[in-house]
Amino acid sequence: MKCSQAHIPTLRDIPQEAESLSHQLMLRAGLIRRLASGIYSYLPLGKRSLRKLENIIREEMDLAGAQEVLLPFVQPRELWEESGRWQVYGKELGRFIDRHENEFCLQPTSEEVITDLARRDLKSYRQLPLNLYQIQTKFRDEIRPRFGVMRSREFLMKDAYSFDVSSESAFTSYEKMREAYRRIFNRTGLSFRAVEADSGAIGGSRSEEFMVLADTGESEIISCSNCEYAANQEKAISKVSQPEPSSSEPISELPTPGLRSIEDLAKKLECEASDLMKTMILVGASSEVVVVVLRGDHELNLIKLESLLKKEKGVSCLRLARDDEMKLWNLPKGSLGPYRFPVKHLLVVDEALSPKAPYVIGANRDDFHLRNFVMSRDLTGSLIQGLIRDVREGESCVHCGSPLRSSRGIEVGHVFYLGTKYSEAMSLKITHENGSERYVEMGCYGIGVGRTLAACIEQNHDQWGISWPVALAPYALAIISLGTGEVLNFSEKLYRYAQNLGVEVLWDDRDLSPGVKLKDMDLIGIPYQLIVGDRGLKNSQVEWKRRKTQEKTFVGIDAIEDWIANEKKNWRA
Amino acid sequence: MKCSQAHIPTLRDIPQEAESLSHQLMLRAGLIRRLASGIYSYLPLGKRSLRKLENIIREEMDLAGAQEVLLPFVQPRELWEESGRWQVYGKELGRFIDRHENEFCLQPTSEEVITDLARRDLKSYRQLPLNLYQIQTKFRDEIRPRFGVMRSREFLMKDAYSFDVSSESAFTSYEKMREAYRRIFNRTGLSFRAVEADSGAIGGSRSEEFMVLADTGESEIISCSNCEYAANQEKAISKVSQPEPSSSEPISELPTPGLRSIEDLAKKLECEASDLMKTMILVGASSEVVVVVLRGDHELNLIKLESLLKKEKGVSCLRLARDDEMKLWNLPKGSLGPYRFPVKHLLVVDEALSPKAPYVIGANRDDFHLRNFVMSRDLTGSLIQGLIRDVREGESCVHCGSPLRSSRGIEVGHVFYLGTKYSEAMSLKITHENGSERYVEMGCYGIGVGRTLAACIEQNHDQWGISWPVALAPYALAIISLGTGEVLNFSEKLYRYAQNLGVEVLWDDRDLSPGVKLKDMDLIGIPYQLIVGDRGLKNSQVEWKRRKTQEKTFVGIDAIEDWIANEKKNWRA
Repeated sequence: MKCSQAHIPTLRDIPQEAESLSHQLMLRAGLIRRLASGIYSYLPLGKRSLRKLENIIREEMDLAGAQEVLLPFVQPRELWEESGRWQVYGKELGRFIDRHENEFCLQPTSEEVITDLARRDLKSYRQLPLNLYQIQTKFRDEIRPRFGVMRSREFLMKDAYSFDVSSESAFTSYEKMREAYRRIFNRTGLSFRAVEADSGAIGGSRSEEFMVLADTGESEIISCSNCEYAANQEKAISKVSQPEPSSSEPISELPTPGLRSIEDLAKKLECEASDLMKTMILVGASSEVVVVVLRGDHELNLIKLESLLKKEKGVSCLRLARDDEMKLWNLPKGSLGPYRFPVKHLLVVDEALSPKAPYVIGANRDDFHLRNFVMSRDLTGSLIQGLIRDVREGESCVHCGSPLRSSRGIEVGHVFYLGTKYSEAMSLKITHENGSERYVEMGCYGIGVGRTLAACIEQNHDQWGISWPVALAPYALAIISLGTGEVLNFSEKLYRYAQNLGVEVLWDDRDLSPGVKLKDMDLIGIPYQLIVGDRGLKNSQVEWKRRKTQEKTFVGIDAIEDWIANEKKNWRA
Repeated sequence: MKCSQAHIPTLRDIPQEAESLSHQLMLRAGLIRRLASGIYSYLPLGKRSLRKLENIIREEMDLAGAQEVLLPFVQPRELWEESGRWQVYGKELGRFIDRHENEFCLQPTSEEVITDLARRDLKSYRQLPLNLYQIQTKFRDEIRPRFGVMRSREFLMKDAYSFDVSSESAFTSYEKMREAYRRIFNRTGLSFRAVEADSGAIGGSRSEEFMVLADTGESEIISCSNCEYAANQEKAISKVSQPEPSSSEPISELPTPGLRSIEDLAKKLECEASDLMKTMILVGASSEVVVVVLRGDHELNLIKLESLLKKEKGVSCLRLARDDEMKLWNLPKGSLGPYRFPVKHLLVVDEALSPKAPYVIGANRDDFHLRNFVMSRDLTGSLIQGLIRDVREGESCVHCGSPLRSSRGIEVGHVFYLGTKYSEAMSLKITHENGSERYVEMGCYGIGVGRTLAACIEQNHDQWGISWPVALAPYALAIISLGTGEVLNFSEKLYRYAQNLGVEVLWDDRDLSPGVKLKDMDLIGIPYQLIVGDRGLKNSQVEWKRRKTQEKTFVGIDAIEDWIANEKKNWRA
């Protein structure tokens, strides 16, 4: 494509609306434009990158035996009632009423429609395993859409659904998708990790997230420096060393006037923060009082706590106790502790705390703590123990003992084992080989297509703009003509040559200053750039530039065609 | 793909819901399934055909210099208010309200969004001409969705929009699209015509429809048997021979007791129906009385009449006068005529009537007519003359005089010259070379992607099922194994060979009866079929079958690979 004919409206200034780096760059490079809050149009360059990613996804899904379908964007209320999600989804579900007063929603995902499709045509075990996928627009009415296409309301998603006769077979299907995802993200050229994930509201018992690593990522990933282990912070586990019991002295009161923070206390008592217990009071949806105890140097992870309490006691929707509640219970704001806690409560203890070691705890009155509190000795009543803390860099991997690392990532893909959640709710059964009828085992597998592009940019950019990996670049090669006459002629010759070679090439043939043209090409981030200038041609040379490293090589005009052909060999995604 | 793994749920019986042949076949062959009224899912086979058509469209659009974008499905009310279409579109526009109480619609087409996109980034004539297109889901809340994906509410459409500095340049863009459409439909292998069309509600002054020819088509096409002329009935013109004046006798009354129809009258008077005038009374939106006169053997075309009256007098929404109105005006039901018509009216005369020839007309009282009525002599007051009749097969082409033909077609594409309708309404201006600001000239160009598949099936089917042209077939080649052991082995060898050759091949490896397998393959309509059976293999032969003609050839097993390679050469779309 010639720049003089291409619609690539680059922007000099950073648009006010842009909140993140990828958002700024996607606007500035002319990839997207905002239509409404969380709703974006893709301009030609953005659409080209989308298409390249779509094609990689399609090829790998097909190779994994999945079959492409196209499901409707507009879906009837009745199906969503069957699964119970018409209510559960709440305001995030876009709903509308048609001219005949029937209710519909805009697909945020398609478990209901695919399950309905399957129950109409699947009868026998012979038809399984089956995996159907689509690449199609979705809508979720996010309360606070942000970061451009990273967290938008309308977005392009690849969603796949697997159907199996048994959970064993379903795990095989799950593994196939996991492998397909690895191949997909490998081919994009992005640095990523597959991490164990909390399966959240969508249900199911096994799930992994595919995260593109980027400092600006919203999720924390804990991964082993040695083995394959990696998990979201919400799911991450670790081993921490526990102190040997160092004292058998009885519990005793300790005046701590004015000492409020763990740090101040540890300093004053000349001990480590890990010798202290941190106590927090939370309240559940049905006003349950929950006392949470952690090692002084650890931080509570609310999602881990919630999932533990939901499983053990059915308690949900935790929040910190309010000041008025604390007053009512006659509790101070700080100096809290689990010993003789004055209110009926559930006690939750992080597993990093040793039952037999002595700790300093709050005395439940201002300016006093207790020392030598030993859980196994001093606590009466039951407690719930589990991992409810943030895992930190440097703690040990539970699998191999090596130190864990923390990094940040952007979720771009998700694989779920769903089990029979939807097949039971919507009565999707098949006849087994032995003649019995059983619910079909399902899995679902998503990739945020637009989001992956944004994540790619978060990972691949510099002060000049985007630096695309070839696999997702709108064009692999740019030819920049700095001059007229012979410069344009020779450029055109190279342009035709590259096109005939099957290279996706963008030729900047515009009558603009060299500075503008070079800046534009670095902003839109074409990975390889051929600069054809008057001076160079006089020396029978052109310049070959790698966008990522900004490294330049002079290549003789007789050798440049072979050079291009040679470089191209390494570009296959 | 192996049939044992493919999801191709064919149906033996004709589904009750199916109203047309293509609808029945698309359901029976497992291409689509209904989700709700006018809303369909595409199953794997249907999706494959969609994709093949999409790719042809994409290639030809790109070749014509158009650039692909992706516009949001969900669009804000404000833009549709600017163009005035929020009101005009009425109930056909799907509307919904988001969680923040903002109003949106589901795109039925995207003139507003593309014009908004253009006005933000287009500043100078240098950026034009520009043509942007998308292939994206649309929604129109049709009052009576019918015929499966032929007239559905949710559908896949390619929509393109051109932007030009002048109307001359806009016509060039229009011509380019016209040519691209010709190439697209040529490549599909469908028999089609481009016809002049009424531009309807969307506005603009030049438009053509691309019609796939099929006996079951909903539109009548008039085309010349000699030259390129073709038009929709709503727009079609013709030359008819006009009689020389044969009499100068004065007008005179003629009793015609009991004679009501043109046929009876002509018989009784021993003349041709074309010697009579047919008179009809219509009423407009503001109660205008319209008297319409046609030659006795011609039929009124209401759309032509309406567009003439709208242009000449601003009269719209015509309907036939009701019985109570006729009574009020003291008019009989039949025996009507334009002579001394007793009520204030607009008179519209079809141009096939000769001003100087004598005609028989009704006398505006029961059982009486008048003879020797000569318009130029006997009419006082003004009249509107134009072509308001259906053009008929056998009339003469206005361009070359050759006989016209009538055929039926299904509209699958539409090209429009829009002018400045949207650029004026939404203030899309650019600076010209001379520094002046002007509204941008626009065009819009649509192709119904799903609809084209349905039209293809209406044109290409027989009693056994669909007969795909290779270009749109989900697979070009089928291998049908009738047997086990060596039959399966040899089939697999051919399957691998065809795949390596780049042939899209479907292998029926299922353990089912030969009858079922052969019927299934004819139903889903794979154009070339290789039948591998025990008996054949014993004679070192396989059977090569052309789906369309059912013609079969025995090919030696040593020659079959070359045969496939040879056939493939003719399949490029």
